[in-house]
Amino acid sequence: MIAVQLESGRVELRRKPMPRIAPGFARIRLIAAGICSTDLELQRGYYGFRGTPGHEFVGMVTEAEDASYIGQRVAGEINLACGKCEWCARGLGRHCPTRKVLGIVDHPGAFQEFLTLPVRNLHRVPRSIPDEHAVFIEPVAAACEILDQVKIAKRRRVAVLGDGKLGLLIAQVLHASGADVHLYGRHRHKLKIADRAGVVTEIMRDQRLRPGKSPQHAYPIVVDATGSPEGLRAAIAMCVPRGTVVMKSTVHGLVPIDTAPAIVNEITLVGSRCGRFEPALRMLASGKVRVDDLISEQFPLDRAPEAFARAATKGVLKVLLRPPG
Amino acid sequence: MIAVQLESGRVELRRKPMPRIAPGFARIRLIAAGICSTDLELQRGYYGFRGTPGHEFVGMVTEAEDASYIGQRVAGEINLACGKCEWCARGLGRHCPTRKVLGIVDHPGAFQEFLTLPVRNLHRVPRSIPDEHAVFIEPVAAACEILDQVKIAKRRRVAVLGDGKLGLLIAQVLHASGADVHLYGRHRHKLKIADRAGVVTEIMRDQRLRPGKSPQHAYPIVVDATGSPEGLRAAIAMCVPRGTVVMKSTVHGLVPIDTAPAIVNEITLVGSRCGRFEPALRMLASGKVRVDDLISEQFPLDRAPEAFARAATKGVLKVLLRPPG
Repeated sequence: MIAVQLESGRVELRRKPMPRIAPGFARIRLIAAGICSTDLELQRGYYGFRGTPGHEFVGMVTEAEDASYIGQRVAGEINLACGKCEWCARGLGRHCPTRKVLGIVDHPGAFQEFLTLPVRNLHRVPRSIPDEHAVFIEPVAAACEILDQVKIAKRRRVAVLGDGKLGLLIAQVLHASGADVHLYGRHRHKLKIADRAGVVTEIMRDQRLRPGKSPQHAYPIVVDATGSPEGLRAAIAMCVPRGTVVMKSTVHGLVPIDTAPAIVNEITLVGSRCGRFEPALRMLASGKVRVDDLISEQFPLDRAPEAFARAATKGVLKVLLRPPG
Repeated sequence: MIAVQLESGRVELRRKPMPRIAPGFARIRLIAAGICSTDLELQRGYYGFRGTPGHEFVGMVTEAEDASYIGQRVAGEINLACGKCEWCARGLGRHCPTRKVLGIVDHPGAFQEFLTLPVRNLHRVPRSIPDEHAVFIEPVAAACEILDQVKIAKRRRVAVLGDGKLGLLIAQVLHASGADVHLYGRHRHKLKIADRAGVVTEIMRDQRLRPGKSPQHAYPIVVDATGSPEGLRAAIAMCVPRGTVVMKSTVHGLVPIDTAPAIVNEITLVGSRCGRFEPALRMLASGKVRVDDLISEQFPLDRAPEAFARAATKGVLKVLLRPPG
């Protein structure tokens, strides 16, 4: 079978034998996968990754001990937890200290014709969610994680900074859950996607993302999805005293932060990563989160090098990969 | 009367007329005041401060409309709030956007023979709290603020980083409230003070405050009171996934932070500043927080330049000022 391989910054194609499955695991034939910013970072050499990336996918189960799964269309939680530690016992396998992570840590990812995952990681995808939308279950779950971490009352003013894929999903998810969302971004064509979903949007040029230029102390909740040090600083400045800033996108390397405003204004900064799949499945099934507009292009798996280059191009949103044939 | 004046980094003494009091204000004769790290920072020129500093004090009311206050021994909340805005309505005048702050922002401080404050800022000090202890009401309130912001269950493991004045008070306050506190610091003689109060202490050399050298993912709650960028980084590394880091001490300038571990481990960072005086009065009255050992020296007000120099000396804890005579 064909598999994408990241090797010293290069995206290559390999022929690999069909993966074997361990007890409790399922073998899944890929239907579609999405290239995420994390995949581009893995390519750039963060985390010293080499192997097959990919963690946003929808597929069909072809082999599993529990026969009821065979032939089912599934998405899969990406953290492979031990199932035995205190974190797993608390339902937080996403923080299991010995976890592997699909396509990121010690487990081959979804950019190949067949992948494997523990059956307990799988979620059946209802028919109302088409394949192209199902690829977004994982990132929508990451957006929904905010709702698990921070109590957001109906009609609460929330600012989301950053109009990349994650920012657009977060704005829509929070809007769908009843918040009064203002999305700040740099690209008119990207903001339009959130506009159409009913989100209030505003262009914020580079310089306006700096404290002093953005609306000061205006929002009880601010989500930073810019992936930039300026974004996090602006988020802190835009937050009211005793408010909450959600740190949703990682910036690599050290981020110079002026901690004084966060301390003086007693702001709470909440780190936020992966989320549960259940609320994401409900969001996508309800049609409240529109993902069609987020798909920029689709490529067959054997054109993965081109697909990665496209995904890394400025202005491009989600690029999908599909198995050949 | 004599007043301390900070002027371009110098500590000077001035003769000033007795301060007039506006309606709703009280005039207070100083009994004793404490030099805080913030005062030393004001001297170094942070916030462009010039004027009379001092915000930790106990005094005697000599004039007030409400005669029941006259002759009373009082401490005073340091934020002079407008009393009309939404923050004030919520009992959070400490975040009033137009607040003045005693000895810090637009209101002369306590390092003078007579000071003024709104009567509503005053708290009568019970007899069980001697003058020298009453000076600590404000910093103990700042330590107690953590209990208002973060729910800490009995016997919960909490690490406090930093054995300066604030770290020693925080460790004692959290210990007195039932937490299982481990205080990490660099100075054996300072840690002894917390030892005597029943806190578990551990020497942590400079290099051990760096991530990778400190106990990793060991505490659900970590309080950073080091005032150093390394301290905040170590606090994030010492915190368990989904845990809380309280940012208690400001570091001036930009602090380079690796946000990735905070996001991956979904850590919550809580900025924490001033607190309500009521719990601090209870803590000090109960004798559960020992402050005698924290007093390094006492100086008369007219030797303030010497007192400031002493307070800035390595290893020195609280330096008190008392009016002459």
